[in-house]
Amino acid sequence: MDYRIEKDTMGEVQVPVNALFGAQTQRSIENFKIAQDINRMPKEIIRAFAYLKKAAALTNFDAGVLPKEKLDLISRVCDEILEGKLDEAFPLVVWQTGSGTQSNMNVNEVIAYRAHVLNGGQLSDKDKVLHPNDDVNKSQSSNDTFPTAMHIAAYKMLVETTIPGLEKLRNTLAQKSKDFMSVVKIGRTHFMDATPLTLGQEFSGYVSQLDHGIKAIKNTLEHLSELALGGTAVGTGINTPPGYSENVAKHIAQLTGLPFITAKNKFESLAAHDAIVEAHGALKTVAVSLMKIANDIRMLSSGPRSGIGEIFIPDNEPGSSIMPGKVNPTQCEAMTMISAQVMGNDVSINIGGSMGHFELNVFKPMMIYNFLHSARLIGEGCVSFNDKCAVGIEPIEANIKKHVDNSLMLVTSLNTKIGYYKAAEIAQKAHKEGTTLKEMAVKLGYVTPEQFDEWVIPAKMVGELPKN
Amino acid sequence: MDYRIEKDTMGEVQVPVNALFGAQTQRSIENFKIAQDINRMPKEIIRAFAYLKKAAALTNFDAGVLPKEKLDLISRVCDEILEGKLDEAFPLVVWQTGSGTQSNMNVNEVIAYRAHVLNGGQLSDKDKVLHPNDDVNKSQSSNDTFPTAMHIAAYKMLVETTIPGLEKLRNTLAQKSKDFMSVVKIGRTHFMDATPLTLGQEFSGYVSQLDHGIKAIKNTLEHLSELALGGTAVGTGINTPPGYSENVAKHIAQLTGLPFITAKNKFESLAAHDAIVEAHGALKTVAVSLMKIANDIRMLSSGPRSGIGEIFIPDNEPGSSIMPGKVNPTQCEAMTMISAQVMGNDVSINIGGSMGHFELNVFKPMMIYNFLHSARLIGEGCVSFNDKCAVGIEPIEANIKKHVDNSLMLVTSLNTKIGYYKAAEIAQKAHKEGTTLKEMAVKLGYVTPEQFDEWVIPAKMVGELPKN
Amino acid sequence: MDYRIEKDTMGEVQVPVNALFGAQTQRSIENFKIAQDINRMPKEIIRAFAYLKKAAALTNFDAGVLPKEKLDLISRVCDEILEGKLDEAFPLVVWQTGSGTQSNMNVNEVIAYRAHVLNGGQLSDKDKVLHPNDDVNKSQSSNDTFPTAMHIAAYKMLVETTIPGLEKLRNTLAQKSKDFMSVVKIGRTHFMDATPLTLGQEFSGYVSQLDHGIKAIKNTLEHLSELALGGTAVGTGINTPPGYSENVAKHIAQLTGLPFITAKNKFESLAAHDAIVEAHGALKTVAVSLMKIANDIRMLSSGPRSGIGEIFIPDNEPGSSIMPGKVNPTQCEAMTMISAQVMGNDVSINIGGSMGHFELNVFKPMMIYNFLHSARLIGEGCVSFNDKCAVGIEPIEANIKKHVDNSLMLVTSLNTKIGYYKAAEIAQKAHKEGTTLKEMAVKLGYVTPEQFDEWVIPAKMVGELPKN
Amino acid sequence: MDYRIEKDTMGEVQVPVNALFGAQTQRSIENFKIAQDINRMPKEIIRAFAYLKKAAALTNFDAGVLPKEKLDLISRVCDEILEGKLDEAFPLVVWQTGSGTQSNMNVNEVIAYRAHVLNGGQLSDKDKVLHPNDDVNKSQSSNDTFPTAMHIAAYKMLVETTIPGLEKLRNTLAQKSKDFMSVVKIGRTHFMDATPLTLGQEFSGYVSQLDHGIKAIKNTLEHLSELALGGTAVGTGINTPPGYSENVAKHIAQLTGLPFITAKNKFESLAAHDAIVEAHGALKTVAVSLMKIANDIRMLSSGPRSGIGEIFIPDNEPGSSIMPGKVNPTQCEAMTMISAQVMGNDVSINIGGSMGHFELNVFKPMMIYNFLHSARLIGEGCVSFNDKCAVGIEPIEANIKKHVDNSLMLVTSLNTKIGYYKAAEIAQKAHKEGTTLKEMAVKLGYVTPEQFDEWVIPAKMVGELPKN
Repeated sequence: MDYRIEKDTMGEVQVPVNALFGAQTQRSIENFKIAQDINRMPKEIIRAFAYLKKAAALTNFDAGVLPKEKLDLISRVCDEILEGKLDEAFPLVVWQTGSGTQSNMNVNEVIAYRAHVLNGGQLSDKDKVLHPNDDVNKSQSSNDTFPTAMHIAAYKMLVETTIPGLEKLRNTLAQKSKDFMSVVKIGRTHFMDATPLTLGQEFSGYVSQLDHGIKAIKNTLEHLSELALGGTAVGTGINTPPGYSENVAKHIAQLTGLPFITAKNKFESLAAHDAIVEAHGALKTVAVSLMKIANDIRMLSSGPRSGIGEIFIPDNEPGSSIMPGKVNPTQCEAMTMISAQVMGNDVSINIGGSMGHFELNVFKPMMIYNFLHSARLIGEGCVSFNDKCAVGIEPIEANIKKHVDNSLMLVTSLNTKIGYYKAAEIAQKAHKEGTTLKEMAVKLGYVTPEQFDEWVIPAKMVGELPKN
Repeated sequence: MDYRIEKDTMGEVQVPVNALFGAQTQRSIENFKIAQDINRMPKEIIRAFAYLKKAAALTNFDAGVLPKEKLDLISRVCDEILEGKLDEAFPLVVWQTGSGTQSNMNVNEVIAYRAHVLNGGQLSDKDKVLHPNDDVNKSQSSNDTFPTAMHIAAYKMLVETTIPGLEKLRNTLAQKSKDFMSVVKIGRTHFMDATPLTLGQEFSGYVSQLDHGIKAIKNTLEHLSELALGGTAVGTGINTPPGYSENVAKHIAQLTGLPFITAKNKFESLAAHDAIVEAHGALKTVAVSLMKIANDIRMLSSGPRSGIGEIFIPDNEPGSSIMPGKVNPTQCEAMTMISAQVMGNDVSINIGGSMGHFELNVFKPMMIYNFLHSARLIGEGCVSFNDKCAVGIEPIEANIKKHVDNSLMLVTSLNTKIGYYKAAEIAQKAHKEGTTLKEMAVKLGYVTPEQFDEWVIPAKMVGELPKN
Repeated sequence: MDYRIEKDTMGEVQVPVNALFGAQTQRSIENFKIAQDINRMPKEIIRAFAYLKKAAALTNFDAGVLPKEKLDLISRVCDEILEGKLDEAFPLVVWQTGSGTQSNMNVNEVIAYRAHVLNGGQLSDKDKVLHPNDDVNKSQSSNDTFPTAMHIAAYKMLVETTIPGLEKLRNTLAQKSKDFMSVVKIGRTHFMDATPLTLGQEFSGYVSQLDHGIKAIKNTLEHLSELALGGTAVGTGINTPPGYSENVAKHIAQLTGLPFITAKNKFESLAAHDAIVEAHGALKTVAVSLMKIANDIRMLSSGPRSGIGEIFIPDNEPGSSIMPGKVNPTQCEAMTMISAQVMGNDVSINIGGSMGHFELNVFKPMMIYNFLHSARLIGEGCVSFNDKCAVGIEPIEANIKKHVDNSLMLVTSLNTKIGYYKAAEIAQKAHKEGTTLKEMAVKLGYVTPEQFDEWVIPAKMVGELPKN
Repeated sequence: MDYRIEKDTMGEVQVPVNALFGAQTQRSIENFKIAQDINRMPKEIIRAFAYLKKAAALTNFDAGVLPKEKLDLISRVCDEILEGKLDEAFPLVVWQTGSGTQSNMNVNEVIAYRAHVLNGGQLSDKDKVLHPNDDVNKSQSSNDTFPTAMHIAAYKMLVETTIPGLEKLRNTLAQKSKDFMSVVKIGRTHFMDATPLTLGQEFSGYVSQLDHGIKAIKNTLEHLSELALGGTAVGTGINTPPGYSENVAKHIAQLTGLPFITAKNKFESLAAHDAIVEAHGALKTVAVSLMKIANDIRMLSSGPRSGIGEIFIPDNEPGSSIMPGKVNPTQCEAMTMISAQVMGNDVSINIGGSMGHFELNVFKPMMIYNFLHSARLIGEGCVSFNDKCAVGIEPIEANIKKHVDNSLMLVTSLNTKIGYYKAAEIAQKAHKEGTTLKEMAVKLGYVTPEQFDEWVIPAKMVGELPKN
């Protein structure tokens, strides 16, 4: 490969001749040969940096510390980054310095060098039109830019991918709940037969879980909306012009269309990432809900002949390479794997979040990597589960009816008529002798056949149903 | 030991002659010989049951399905339980049926039998004045009582112990932050010397963390305020009188003085415990914050002679059995152990929460055991940390001054005057040659001594300080 | 309460007049008011201390630095502790200093003061026959005694409770596997009908899991057998007589009957607890196995009429406070709760284990608390699960037969005769039209009835069975 | 894009005209649009499949059920896969069916279609020379191939990347330990000054940790060496020729050069992945060790002027975008982030491992994704940490000496001379009055200056040092 020479404060470095980045990016490539093909810094972070670098330039320009020409150049490159045109220029991995300094410098270098080219220069020119530190990074530190990028990327992912995905699934389940509201089926507690409910009621529980989960995520957005930018090196805002923090947050809010504000306390913003920990706590809550829902749907659709078999889910692919004709609940499986992943990611985030020291937490790249992973998996997982599974769910009425009719737990209706103990005796003997409840109830002399028919009506055991 | 005979639907059981409980409690003692001396069902759950049993009796009385005499007897025993008089009657452990049925029956039995005694009867009487199932458990199921007890106990613990403990510590740290607001000290990022800030600013980050954490906990109270009671067996409310759910929640709110309401969706309330998962997510967020804070304080106080030594913390006990005169940051150690415990408890709760099936989650006792453990450890841990450590923190001015004066990172002030690269050269050479920054800056000819003194002033590098 | 005055290096302290402990224990009670009623230092640790204090005294005597009279007194009190006679004298909690110093001093004080009483003295005497530090703690530090106690307690719990419990359950399941080896049943993959196997084969998988799990635990015993004692304050062994480390380990091995040796590297032993982390890694592996096994048994026994219903498990207690006659898989529920607990405990232990600094890890009490909790829960949980559930498992032959006969996946046998694609067509059409496999296979003209009967025989699809 | 039509048992599918895969792969691409750009099935799994498909073909040929021509074609394509030539043909993601069926079919299709091309055919030919199911997948199921691929990939990663990386770091630290064996430095317990040890002793603890960790990993290899192949659909080995299991394991052992054997119990191998859980338990143990080691090195090197500053670590890159001349412990930061990641991955793996049902665990892709991630991060992280940090560690003798000379904990030497209490008095007063130990010891009259000099010699307080 051909190289050119770039310099930083430590000296000269050979950089691939056409690379848009410079010495510090190259050093990081060489210093951190860890999972380079699979763990690049998430592109959402690179994009978030583009927003904040542009906002910083705008703010510096407003403050009179950056000339218009430089602002324009920075802005143009940032726009290119946002359009995804420069992705190849960001090769660094998650496993680098824990402040993300090298990714910040990667962005600074790419903006400076690409601007130089846009300005008519050559990458091989010794002096470039912009200086990575003095111009692009002006009024900034890695210590405040990286956490700002974390919040921008996290917030955007939540509102653009996670929540819409959850809402899509939630709405489908709500429609199913409505559609199935009068389908009386057996309840199961302890995985054992219990008193009846309707399939719509069962699904309404899932809807309620997701409603609470979405709300839990939304509760965490406020903390995430606080931006570190303006804190610079240690939170004091050294080397920033007056009013910088508030103004740069306004610019970011404008550029992203999201309600970002400057963090009231910058010392927290650099030294701790509790907003990430808190928000991921909501994500893991949702993962817990999704595990429950996907498990239920997997089990309710089990069979086709020797399982529970109360609902039908779509057949999307041949299920087995050896068992012909087999169809499996594959979307449930992807979803439950995602849930397990998110629950593990939560632990990584907690550990990273807990180990900040003094003025800086240095688990930043790892934390945001896991956060974005979880947020995206949930969002995209819900869409997949929705489109390829939930929308096609239908009750299998024959099995549902058979299960209700056979149930011994209908005896519960008799508690208020003949008392718990006699009711128990009926159920136990019917179970042992394999009779119906009615046969045994009458045989034991506790009720007449007429009373039984009047008192034990599954459809009356499900409580009041919502009116559509 | 002497026994009497009690019966349930499965037959006769020998019960200690004076035990206030009956057959089902005794069965559970014998069936679950697991950690019986260390893992009793938390007393907060027993107390919560007393509230809800009384509330259920009041509601049943209101609905005309329970006579006044029975209401009065139930109420009297519930009050005794709340006063802690009957603790010995609740020997069951966490590791029982996952619905907590046996603890519900334990409470039902104790209320029925103690009422019988209060009513002048003998424990040995075959018939008791109250029936555990038909009277005490009337309009209830374990499946809705136990999760109701979970929410009551969790909510109470959070508002009575956890939040007050956190607020106490938060207020002390806020006062310290104010007191130390003008103590200029060296900042540390990456555990390395950085630009200065004040000790008060450093502490303000802790306060901000706790403020956010307390808010995060409070955000979860609404979900916790929803009670399952009225859902009975599977969420449909079978065997409850009309209006029962709303009324029983009102009674519980009145008895506890807390804003409990009936859950809009009872199917979720029985089958999932996302409110517990979500609220514990906030607790683990706080645990993460406390780990950071306690670690910082431990490290800032390290020494006395070969550590960082910038703050003094109280000496509470001899620190070593072998090293005479040693004093250790023991409160920090208890606090960080608590944080680690809470982060692990979170995982147990997540797993339990994710594995509900159909109409019931059967990890209830384990979940609430861990929740109450965490909530209490944080609350009591904060009080201990506050009273025995935080209140006594003082700056060690001599060390603080020495560290600031020596710092090479004061060079950052020169960025905006001479550029990042020249500033770096000064710092690197001063480091290598062991000189002061000023000496090297002047030697390199980048600034005059006068400029250096004018531009590099630690107290001016800390930004704007809040006015008290 | 009446008090007497005790002194330590920090001054005077009021101690309950009859307490066997002294000033430092009392300070800890007052300094750590955290979960005092539920989180006492595990009694297994106190017992382990008794072993090691006695061993240290023997070794000191051997080395000529402790007179015979003092050795005898120390030994007598240690024996009383081991007999459980002095439990009340150890009130300290887990949430104390992270080195466990206060519990070490608690033991030192109790031995010194109880010895004084045994020697005819009074607790109120100013001078006692033994000095807690200079005699009882001679040649020791908290930093090496506490980790020694951790290993003794952990090793003992594993070999006395955990492994025997696992083996008991393993043996029962192995017997069941043998008993059920020819019971042909439907297999289930993806929770869906699959090709058949025998119930004994299914159970043999559980046995194999436990065999591997027990082996995994045993693999970790070697690391646990290494004792820190002799490292004293920082691992260098300061203030120990020559040969102390090896000799004290020998005495501990003799007293406990377990193969303890002195750790080759004492710096690791004090600063890290990887042996605990590693051994708990094996415990969590077993917890994972037990979750799977208990879940399977819960699901296989589900019903009684609308579940899978292929095995019967014992009815141990009435299952519901509202649904008469209901029986639930309560042992499975306790077991799965235990599994979830252990998986969470693992995280607490990992975090604690990772955060040692320099010469000492100060998460010791928290780590061993969780370790002992897990080890005991698994051991006692297995015994409970075994005695109250596993031993009573029986196949429900009627259901098993019905499921096999109905299965569409028997078609897999035809792959090697007519190819996967035609076999799939048979299964899919039989499923859609609700016919038997045979009917459809013949109708489609792919096989004759005679061929079908010859080729599709469930009992021949289960491979070779082990001969008993 | 241009398409061709491919078929499976569910019907026709449009596939990109030049894609080497077929209908089922294409279905999966469309059914699982989840993180497709970042979560492809790890290439190590694809490679492992190539080994096992070739081994299966060899075994089928040996058994007379596959002709030589087909064996040769399968082998040629497998070799191409192993050479990395066909990577683009494997686009599927982790978040698919939990058995990995679609990746198995992806491999089957690619082998069949690429073989057809190698054989002179066209991708557009309706009939191909090999059938994905009947030829390539012969005697196999996804249910036994995927777990076999898991074990092959995991075992290879451990022995080729993880263990060598750990050993490299271990050896460097061992050399450093030897080099620094006589550098007497202050010890630190509770992050506080303690008695001295040598820097080499301190490092010997790290070496011991890694030695134990490597051994812990090796202990798990035996379980990982057991292969599921031959179990086919549910573990019974349906549709395999006699002797298949043993023979196919032998072929895999030969092809990989690793000691694989057939699993004694195939029911475990399909339904549970305890070997993965167990082996990852060892990985998390090592992660715990590495966190401790990297933290220590970070802290020991802290400064340069206001930290502990006892060791020098290499400067690899400019540390700050704002603070000129700053150098940070970036390799420590990457390593500690890796540790946190591995500890979280462990939880995902535990959850996945615990949730198998009946004859199949369907968290396979998620489990192996996390496993390989951890194993690789540790291996490559250790090499990076070694090459860019550990090899360059040097003591900073001046600081080390200063810390030892100042230490108050040297007083511990006096315990055995004047007793713990008097020694404590000396240390406490020296601390309070800011004197040296010696000054205070003499002032208090407990020792003469000569005695002090004779008794308190740091170099004699470090125990016996190993002879090189």
